[in-house]
Amino acid sequence: MKNFVFHNKTKIYFGKGQIENLHSEICRFGKRVLLVYGGGSIKKIGLYDEVISQLKKAEMTVFELPGVEPNPRHTTVNKGAKICKDEHIDVLLAVGGGSTIDATKAIAAAAKYDGDDCWDLIKRKAFVKETLPFCTVLTLSATGSEMDGGCVISNIESNEKLGYFAPDNNPDVSFLDPTYTFSVSSYQTASGSADIMAHVFDMSYFSLENRMDMLVRMQEEVLKTVVKYAPVAIEKPNDYDARANLMWASSWALNGFLYDGLSHATVCHAMEHELSAFYDITHGHGLAILIPRWLSYVLDEKTAPIIKRMGVNLFGVDENLENTEGAKQAIKALENFYFVTLGLKSRLSDLGIDDKHFKTMAKQACGWRGGVLNGFTDLTTQDVENIYRLCL
Amino acid sequence: MKNFVFHNKTKIYFGKGQIENLHSEICRFGKRVLLVYGGGSIKKIGLYDEVISQLKKAEMTVFELPGVEPNPRHTTVNKGAKICKDEHIDVLLAVGGGSTIDATKAIAAAAKYDGDDCWDLIKRKAFVKETLPFCTVLTLSATGSEMDGGCVISNIESNEKLGYFAPDNNPDVSFLDPTYTFSVSSYQTASGSADIMAHVFDMSYFSLENRMDMLVRMQEEVLKTVVKYAPVAIEKPNDYDARANLMWASSWALNGFLYDGLSHATVCHAMEHELSAFYDITHGHGLAILIPRWLSYVLDEKTAPIIKRMGVNLFGVDENLENTEGAKQAIKALENFYFVTLGLKSRLSDLGIDDKHFKTMAKQACGWRGGVLNGFTDLTTQDVENIYRLCL
Repeated sequence: MKNFVFHNKTKIYFGKGQIENLHSEICRFGKRVLLVYGGGSIKKIGLYDEVISQLKKAEMTVFELPGVEPNPRHTTVNKGAKICKDEHIDVLLAVGGGSTIDATKAIAAAAKYDGDDCWDLIKRKAFVKETLPFCTVLTLSATGSEMDGGCVISNIESNEKLGYFAPDNNPDVSFLDPTYTFSVSSYQTASGSADIMAHVFDMSYFSLENRMDMLVRMQEEVLKTVVKYAPVAIEKPNDYDARANLMWASSWALNGFLYDGLSHATVCHAMEHELSAFYDITHGHGLAILIPRWLSYVLDEKTAPIIKRMGVNLFGVDENLENTEGAKQAIKALENFYFVTLGLKSRLSDLGIDDKHFKTMAKQACGWRGGVLNGFTDLTTQDVENIYRLCL
Repeated sequence: MKNFVFHNKTKIYFGKGQIENLHSEICRFGKRVLLVYGGGSIKKIGLYDEVISQLKKAEMTVFELPGVEPNPRHTTVNKGAKICKDEHIDVLLAVGGGSTIDATKAIAAAAKYDGDDCWDLIKRKAFVKETLPFCTVLTLSATGSEMDGGCVISNIESNEKLGYFAPDNNPDVSFLDPTYTFSVSSYQTASGSADIMAHVFDMSYFSLENRMDMLVRMQEEVLKTVVKYAPVAIEKPNDYDARANLMWASSWALNGFLYDGLSHATVCHAMEHELSAFYDITHGHGLAILIPRWLSYVLDEKTAPIIKRMGVNLFGVDENLENTEGAKQAIKALENFYFVTLGLKSRLSDLGIDDKHFKTMAKQACGWRGGVLNGFTDLTTQDVENIYRLCL
């Protein structure tokens, strides 16, 4: 069991109507706010008006950065950072899903960086010393960005999608109102749910390291929460309990509590980021396609007991099965959940992806981590390419 | 499902040897530190020397307040606050269990209070506006005080033991090294484990309110962790995994995550505080004696399914039993765990307590909450007295 540090400063307001506390929280950070959002769905559900009304109540001067992309671009981050510098912004407010929050997080850091290009920070050419404060209003249960210090930014020119993490770059305050996710489509609910599960699978659950028993069992509770409530939310989009459970699960999957000091790479995220960088696909969907094939590829006598355990505890696979057979059943059950219950398409070819870039993507996925993805089992460039092919 | 706010600022260093980070953390808060501890067990295990060495490394000027009582007295808090004022203390450092941390927490508040008597704050005659920063080094897994804003202080003169909670009064940094609990006796391990379970039972698990499913299941994981590892720690005091699981369970039982906005009183804590106030007994042991009798007393057709669920999920009670019979089996299993597995004495009379003060204690327990303890079921003064009698 490894040592670890747990620290999470984000203050969470959870529940219906909590937005009414926005004005009193945000004015603690200053008077000039940059409101960041995406494609306009927040206007359709009336949230934009609620937010503006709160900002007026707080007597804030409001600047806006709309149009953050689903895989947020570094150019958008640069645009936001420039507004912050030019307009002497005191605090940022992200209203949207993980992409909007990720972009805002990067803007908060880039606004305090002397250079013009946030890509320097993402590529670790320069380091974040200070950030602007920022708050979030969440509209999609998926990435956990509402309660962590990480973000993922894409550079479309160079086909790079890279994660960046700074422990002091958590949101200061996040508003989690499950009713804001009632209008999320079946497809985005399914992809978001797959993303929540992938955080647990990839960050901590599938590991051969010695881990704290309580945390492994809590990881399973987060996973079981998604298995139980994602289908309910798809069937009944306005089911408050289902949306609430998914929303809080998304935050806890990635807020640091469940990792317990594990140090390995998040191999599926590394592989998926290349898919999104080259093809701009939905992150959670890419993960759902990759994970079962990855598990099949790494299945051996060491990994089998853990894969089987997932099947037993999440999907009722018979615990008396021999380990390898149990693990195979577990993978089948997981595929069934992703591709039948959640209705996600099961192959990369369904998303218009062929094998043209697999070699480059595999090289790049491993390249960021010194040539090998160390994890549940270590993966070479050839392994990664093989796994991509299994997903075709 | 009620709305809630979750915010926990405490930074946790978890694991063996993490004390090496004390010097770099504590010097962030200033140069003059008041070191608070209890009866001297920290000297026996060598921890005192390690702490002093860290404080020297940080070039701190060290003042000391030893001798904090197991149920910390308001007079001790006043003494600590006076040192803070007289010596211009910048930061406090608690080294010990929940009592030492609770006292330190109250000192941190009282040091910034204009009056001389911290009891004004505990009795809400005055309110905490500001506190001194403080760090903790934990030596007993029990109260959760290492990661929350609550403390319980006793006034021996008036036979009062009262809880006090301020959301900004969390420790700034806590060091959780399971090896510091290797020397904890079987009795204190058992009592501490009962205390952890009581926090979950009393704060959230036994409730008729509609709650978030994920959190109820995570509550059970914390409880199962204690059921699994407390006997291991008693049998093998130096078992790192057992001590680590218990330690992290103690923090999470009471750090806010598991409550999910429940608003009822903690009825067993209210009843136990009177026992400790009148007889200075070990808090966790008092709770272990009270809880099964309380459950028997409140058992009816509404409460039965939840009590039974506890038995099914924690102790393997047959889930096919009818609710009332299942609940009775669950209570028996819990009694067996407390009084056989953990070896705690089962009756108040075993601790030298008779019924002399029961009427006064019952009146006082309910008095703080307006005459009725509202909770799993509401309890009047007469109910509380009846429950005390069941424990004799």
